[in-house]
This record gives sequence, C-alpha cells and structure tokens, in this order.
Amino acid sequence: MQTLPDCETLLLDLQGSVLTVTLNRPHKRNSMNYKLVCEMLDVFDAIEKRDDIRALVLEGAGGIFCAGGDISDMRLVEGVDNADGRGAPWHFNRSFGRLITRANALPQVVIVLLEGIVLGGGFGLACVSDVAIVDRNTQFALPETGLGIVPAQIAPFVVQRIGLAHARRLALLGERIDGLEAQELGIAHYLTEGRDSMDDRLAKVLAKLKNCAPKANATTKALMLKVGVEEHEGLLDSAADAFTRALEGDEGCEGTKAFKDKRKPTWAR
Amino acid sequence: MQTLPDCETLLLDLQGSVLTVTLNRPHKRNSMNYKLVCEMLDVFDAIEKRDDIRALVLEGAGGIFCAGGDISDMRLVEGVDNADGRGAPWHFNRSFGRLITRANALPQVVIVLLEGIVLGGGFGLACVSDVAIVDRNTQFALPETGLGIVPAQIAPFVVQRIGLAHARRLALLGERIDGLEAQELGIAHYLTEGRDSMDDRLAKVLAKLKNCAPKANATTKALMLKVGVEEHEGLLDSAADAFTRALEGDEGCEGTKAFKDKRKPTWAR
Amino acid sequence: MQTLPDCETLLLDLQGSVLTVTLNRPHKRNSMNYKLVCEMLDVFDAIEKRDDIRALVLEGAGGIFCAGGDISDMRLVEGVDNADGRGAPWHFNRSFGRLITRANALPQVVIVLLEGIVLGGGFGLACVSDVAIVDRNTQFALPETGLGIVPAQIAPFVVQRIGLAHARRLALLGERIDGLEAQELGIAHYLTEGRDSMDDRLAKVLAKLKNCAPKANATTKALMLKVGVEEHEGLLDSAADAFTRALEGDEGCEGTKAFKDKRKPTWAR
Repeated sequence: MQTLPDCETLLLDLQGSVLTVTLNRPHKRNSMNYKLVCEMLDVFDAIEKRDDIRALVLEGAGGIFCAGGDISDMRLVEGVDNADGRGAPWHFNRSFGRLITRANALPQVVIVLLEGIVLGGGFGLACVSDVAIVDRNTQFALPETGLGIVPAQIAPFVVQRIGLAHARRLALLGERIDGLEAQELGIAHYLTEGRDSMDDRLAKVLAKLKNCAPKANATTKALMLKVGVEEHEGLLDSAADAFTRALEGDEGCEGTKAFKDKRKPTWAR
Repeated sequence: MQTLPDCETLLLDLQGSVLTVTLNRPHKRNSMNYKLVCEMLDVFDAIEKRDDIRALVLEGAGGIFCAGGDISDMRLVEGVDNADGRGAPWHFNRSFGRLITRANALPQVVIVLLEGIVLGGGFGLACVSDVAIVDRNTQFALPETGLGIVPAQIAPFVVQRIGLAHARRLALLGERIDGLEAQELGIAHYLTEGRDSMDDRLAKVLAKLKNCAPKANATTKALMLKVGVEEHEGLLDSAADAFTRALEGDEGCEGTKAFKDKRKPTWAR
Repeated sequence: MQTLPDCETLLLDLQGSVLTVTLNRPHKRNSMNYKLVCEMLDVFDAIEKRDDIRALVLEGAGGIFCAGGDISDMRLVEGVDNADGRGAPWHFNRSFGRLITRANALPQVVIVLLEGIVLGGGFGLACVSDVAIVDRNTQFALPETGLGIVPAQIAPFVVQRIGLAHARRLALLGERIDGLEAQELGIAHYLTEGRDSMDDRLAKVLAKLKNCAPKANATTKALMLKVGVEEHEGLLDSAADAFTRALEGDEGCEGTKAFKDKRKPTWAR
C-alpha cells in the first residue's frame, strides 16, 4: 500500500476512509507555489490506487480556501525542469492545469470546503470537485486579466463547471461573487454559514457517501467524465461493459443481495 | 399508417394528435423490465413516421412515474438475443440506453409527467424530455452505486441535462432531491402541486404546442440535438438548407401567409 | 486605424474605448433585414483590429432590442450574391449565423442591453454576449415554428447559452419568457427595472471592465471559446503559451508591477 508523502505545504489527516488535505500557507492566503503543486500531485499519486481511501476533503488553513497561484513565484520558479526551453513560467503555469485535471479524475469522491477567498487556481480546483460546500461569505473571483495575465489553466474548468455564459462574464470583468451566487451558478452544491454549519454539512455528505460502493462510484465518475468527449453509442457500449462487471463483481453481488435481504451492504457499515 | 402495438406493460391512449403512454406496472412502482423496454421501443417504431401524432405524453400509473430498472429482472432476463455472448445483463442494460436515446430523438414533442418517484432509468427518461412537468413532492435519485452497480446507461443523459457538476454529486452520493430542486437544476421545466395543477399545466403546454408547425418542430429538434456533436459551420450550413426547405414547403408558405393575413395557420386550428 | 463605416440601419457612437451600436429600425421593431446584417458585419470588420475599442455595447432604438429577422425580407432579398444557386433565402438565413458567430468571437467585450422584445435572431445575438443586462419587462421568444419555419441559425447559440433542456422547450413551444426568467436561465447576467437602472448597471460593468487588461481579456475570451472544441490537453498547452506571452508582454509586466507597487495599472486609469 502506497504511503502518503511528507509535505511542507500541505497537512494530511487520514481518518478511516477519509483523507483531509489542508493547503497550509496561511501567510500567503494559501496561494499555490510550485512546491505546493508538486506536493499535491504526489498526494494524488499516492492515493490513486488506494481503495481504502474513499473521500478526499480539500480545504485551506485559517478559514481561507486558496488565493490562486503565488504571483511572487511566477517568474522565478525553483526546481522546474526546463529541458524543453519553454521557460519556468510556462511550466509553472502548465502545472496548474495538470493539477486540476488530475483532481478532476481522482477515483475518490473529492469534497471541497470553500471559505474566505477562492481565487484563480483555487477557483479552478473548486470547479472539479464532486461535492462543494461553500460558506456564504466566501469571495470568488478570476482576477488574472486585472494583472495583465490570463486564467489560462483555469478558465477551461470554469467553463465546464458553470457554462460559457457566466464564465465569460466573470473572467472578463474580474467580478467578485459571494457564496450564494457561487451556489446559484453551480460552482457549489451546499450553502452554509459559519464553520459549524459547514462541518455539519460535511458529516451529512460523508454519511451519504458511505452508502455508495467505492468501486461503483469510481466507475461512475470515470464514465461521467467521458460524456461529450467519447462518441455517444460507443460510450454506452463500454458503459454496459462496466455495468456487467459491476453487477457480477463483489460489490454488485453484495449490494443486490443486501437489498433483497433488507440489510446494509458491507461497505455501508 | 402504422398501427399502434398491443402492449402488456403500457397503456396507450391516442386523443387527436396526442398519444399518452402510461407505464403500467404499479405493483412494481412502474420499474422497467425487459418486456416494458421492448414494448416502448415498439411504440417508438410505430409513431416515428406518423406525423398525425404531434405529442407523446409519458407518465406512470398510480401517481408514480418510474422506479428505474427492475432489479429482479437484471440477471435472469427472458427473451434477450445473446448471440454475441455478452450475456443477458449486458443486453438488458444496453437496452435502457437505446430506449433513452430513441426517446431523445423522437420527432414528436415528448412531455413527461413526473410524480411520486423517479429513479435510475426513470430519471434518465425524464432527462430527454422536451417538456417536463414535476410535482413538488416527487423524489428523484440515482440509487445505483448504493447497490454496488453503476447508472451506466443513465448517467450520460443526466450529465447532458443538468451538467457535470450536479450529475456527479447526485450519482456519487445517491442523494434524493425533490420536485423543486429538480426544477432548479433544469430536470423539469414546470413545478406543480397535486394532479389537478399538473393537468392544468399539461393543457397549457399542449395549447402552446398546437401553434407550432409539426414538421418545423421536428426539424428544429433534430437540429438542436446536433449542437456540440457536428462541427459548427457545417451545422449552420445544413441548418440553412433546412430553413429554406421549411420556408418553401407547405408549412412555411401557410405560416408566413397566415402571419400576414393575421389569422391562425391551419395546424393551429 | 480602420475607420467606422457609415450605416443606414445602425447608429454608431464611440465614446473613449466604448462603441455603442444601436439597431435603428424602430418602425420595424429593429428587426434585421439583409442590409442591417451586412452593416453590422462591416462594423465588426472595422473594429476587430482596433485595440483602442475595448467594449461594444449593443442595443435597440426606442426601448426595443430586436424582433429577429425581418420576415418581409426573407423571400425577396436584395443584394445577395447567389452565384452558387442556393437562392436568396438560403443566403439571407445563413448570414444570421455568420453575424452571431462573428459577434461571439469579437476581441472586445460585448455587452447587450435587452429591453422590450428579444425574438429569433435578436435572441441569438443576446446569447453570445459577454455581459447581458435585461429589463424585467422584456419578452423573449423563439417564434419561428409558429410561422412554419425554423430557428435554424439561432437554435445552436441558444443551446450553447442555456443548455439543451431549456432550449428545446422554448423552441418547440414558442414560449414567451420575461426578463426574470431570462436571468434565471443564464441568458442575461443582470436584472434591472427601467432605463435608469439599466444605465447604472452598465456604468458599473464598464467600470469593472476598465480594470481588466484589453489584450489579456481578448486572449482569455478566445481561449474560453475553444473549450469543448479543442482537445483538452492540447488546449491547456496552448493556454500556457498564451499565459507566457501575456506575462512577458507589456500588460503582464505593467500589471504585476502595479500590483506590487499597490497602484492602478495604466489601462485602468
């Protein structure tokens, strides 16, 4: 079993089947430098094959989710392999897209706790969560073009999450929205007020999640990510393959049996 | 003119240009067994060329829309042609995707009346309707992964209807939502309370529909289903072909003439 | 610098970096004839390379946005080049798709002021705006199939804006919706009541827009329009190219420097 990496910029806390990852650069409002991106990718590598971990909860230290990319790190990035000559900024920027793409496709259910501020790359991460809980007083924005730069690795995920109509407005005006509007736009699923309310909601989400079979969930998630990418009929054919494997596998046998016996399946205990 | 098939699991009622199809297995909460899926496909075959039928209203007997696939039918399916050796479960599962794909593309306007419970494959059917009316007290869910199986033929249509952000939450938590949330998410268009209110809304929808030319509607629907599938400029070229045929055809001549004469066109009488 | 064209059917008013284009056929409820479409395309040609123009505000004369295509112009269209024999109606129809496609992709931020009525092709134009402000009493509809014709060049943009679920309902019922529902569906971003309220909102939008670097905005917009069209990883690669050019260009240097110096960048003054 893959062990979890030691991290400088992240706090990791594994409780049962739930891994909580806390962005831990509160002095920088949890903005992401290159080290943090690399450490997060190491965490993803470590958990990708671990089916004992069913949920990843992602939050920021000190009541702030994430202020985006660390602008002080953008030009002078340490540790980047620049063998192809594209330059450190290119590679640092591209690493955000890699991070968000990987987060999107994790087999675990990814839950984000959105508080305080959610900017740029933090906004991008929020947009690939399976479940997003938002505090009403959170401030969201894509401030890049106000700095003369471009939300290059982020805008695609915002478009996928909330549609082009709202994404273009937010990106081209640098407009701030709050938690309520974030919920209305579909960035977040649940609106809460205060940390206690958020923790209550998280507990309810984790309780529901426990009833869902882990492998069936991972298969379902992978299938949904292919919609609009793979051709329709072929996608349904391979979905039927996945259905048959699930039905005839351990989870499908246990789940349908438990249903008939009117008891909880093993994974829900 | 193709006659409507005799069905065991469906009630068919043709009144003028409106065909009402009622899922009629109330003892099983109108869950869909293989026979029902086949009979529904037979109905689609029969009506596809019938331009005297302008609307298909789909509902469930006894105040319940549909509880999804009949789980007791999933392993031991009678009547499946398994010549390719993929097994009965594969073919039964795949038949749901065929059913929903066909329902999506019918030339008629498809109206669903969502009451009671709307689960799994019923949820999928709701997601391809042209018009969905929902009772406030309806319960929707994708319960599959709670049974260790996968909403394989359904999840793609849910993603297309409500977007990935909400689809992944609903599928991965097995969460129940009610009629109000179904409307907010765009599963349904009209929220009603009680059967009288639903019937009133249906009458209004059918009255509006009557004003719309049947062939123009079928052409428009087919065009909209190609958005995001066909390349943009080519799609607009063939759309201009369709426009010209409509303008110069009987409906276009009658419609523009009636407009100038300030009278109702023939199809609206 | 490209000069703005003289127009018969449009009023042009350039104030600083904001060009206001007013559809000016109030006796025809600003419906679009072939001349208007051609003149609008000429305006787009003129401003496409002008980076001194940062915003295009599009509105209709006399408190009415646009009643769609001019039906009296559909069969007998003057001035159409019909060398390919497809006929004047084909070319007139296709020109709407060209217009909306071009409006969608302008490097400027396109702001629409939606008042009075917004039908057919006007609905299509509204659907490609970056920012849409709507008066509560506005009436929107796709009335085409009621005339026996097809919203051929329009429906694709409606689907892209509000999703298939609502687009199919609106197009197949010819249903009218008001400003509030238009905002709820994501056609418009801001709901106002009365012209003063709309002008206030426009001023706020333009103030926000001023803070955003023009070239960075144009690059961001072009990137967002490629989502779902270009392959994901390739899109992120070219987005990193765009990021690097922006960071190392004049706007990126000025913007990040102004941020460190805690002052406004030049473009925001």
